[in-house]
Amino acid sequence: MKIEYSAIGTIHSPFKTPHGMPIQPSAAIGVKGRINLDKKYIPALSDLDGFSHIYILYHFHLAATQKLKVIPFLDVDERGIFSTRAPIRPNTIGLSVVKLVSIKENILSIENVDVVDGTPLLDIKPYIQDMEAVENVRIGWLEKFKNNVHSKKADDRFI
Amino acid sequence: MKIEYSAIGTIHSPFKTPHGMPIQPSAAIGVKGRINLDKKYIPALSDLDGFSHIYILYHFHLAATQKLKVIPFLDVDERGIFSTRAPIRPNTIGLSVVKLVSIKENILSIENVDVVDGTPLLDIKPYIQDMEAVENVRIGWLEKFKNNVHSKKADDRFI
Repeated sequence: MKIEYSAIGTIHSPFKTPHGMPIQPSAAIGVKGRINLDKKYIPALSDLDGFSHIYILYHFHLAATQKLKVIPFLDVDERGIFSTRAPIRPNTIGLSVVKLVSIKENILSIENVDVVDGTPLLDIKPYIQDMEAVENVRIGWLEKFKNNVHSKKADDRFI
Repeated sequence: MKIEYSAIGTIHSPFKTPHGMPIQPSAAIGVKGRINLDKKYIPALSDLDGFSHIYILYHFHLAATQKLKVIPFLDVDERGIFSTRAPIRPNTIGLSVVKLVSIKENILSIENVDVVDGTPLLDIKPYIQDMEAVENVRIGWLEKFKNNVHSKKADDRFI
């Protein structure tokens, strides 16, 4: 079953290539970026300015391959791709939570951006922490690496 | 720019139609579901069983139309689609956080499922609360309705 989407805008960030990028939003605190939304979607932005954070869904446009197992940036062992956020997944969709700073017409100023410059945007959703029935979270293989996430940077292994 | 993805499996739930469904995962606590993953992706599941919760990304296959503003289930006023999780959005991608109960070969048992039965799955990502740089969350127009989310059910307005 083929499913077709279209980019609704472009994400801009200081990261011109994946190399050296933060590997998660929490390692990208304060990193400023911008969403240039296609102007036809301006009406769809109304009421969004009341939300402090948004999910952005995007297309990993640099992911040229696909693997079912990868060695994540944080690890030395191979892991199943669905237990990682690596871009070279079956459907190359990325997901980040970013801080929404302001909206002016079709331009969204965002912070905590861990996305490469020029990434095609697929969707924006409100981040609603209260509504997610999440407690007693376990994070598997990442548990022993979670203190490294702020210092570790990406390289080119996933393009 | 056209972007093409393929379903990697199917999500099963007790909800045969959107009518009467919980409108958010927190209103679906304990609702059991199942992911039937395409068997070729079994290697990609390794290490996922260490995670208590996962993001599932899916295609709103019943969304036959597209609107830039909608009246959400919780509200009486029209809101910009990007400030809601309504399915009839420019790219009909859904996102939920569900509890991962078990994995057996290509079958994932999940809980807190707010997805209609038969929904095509696009991606699975680990839910890593610690890695999201999120604090001081504001939830805009939803603030005054957040106590209604557990009792309110969906209807057919978004198909």
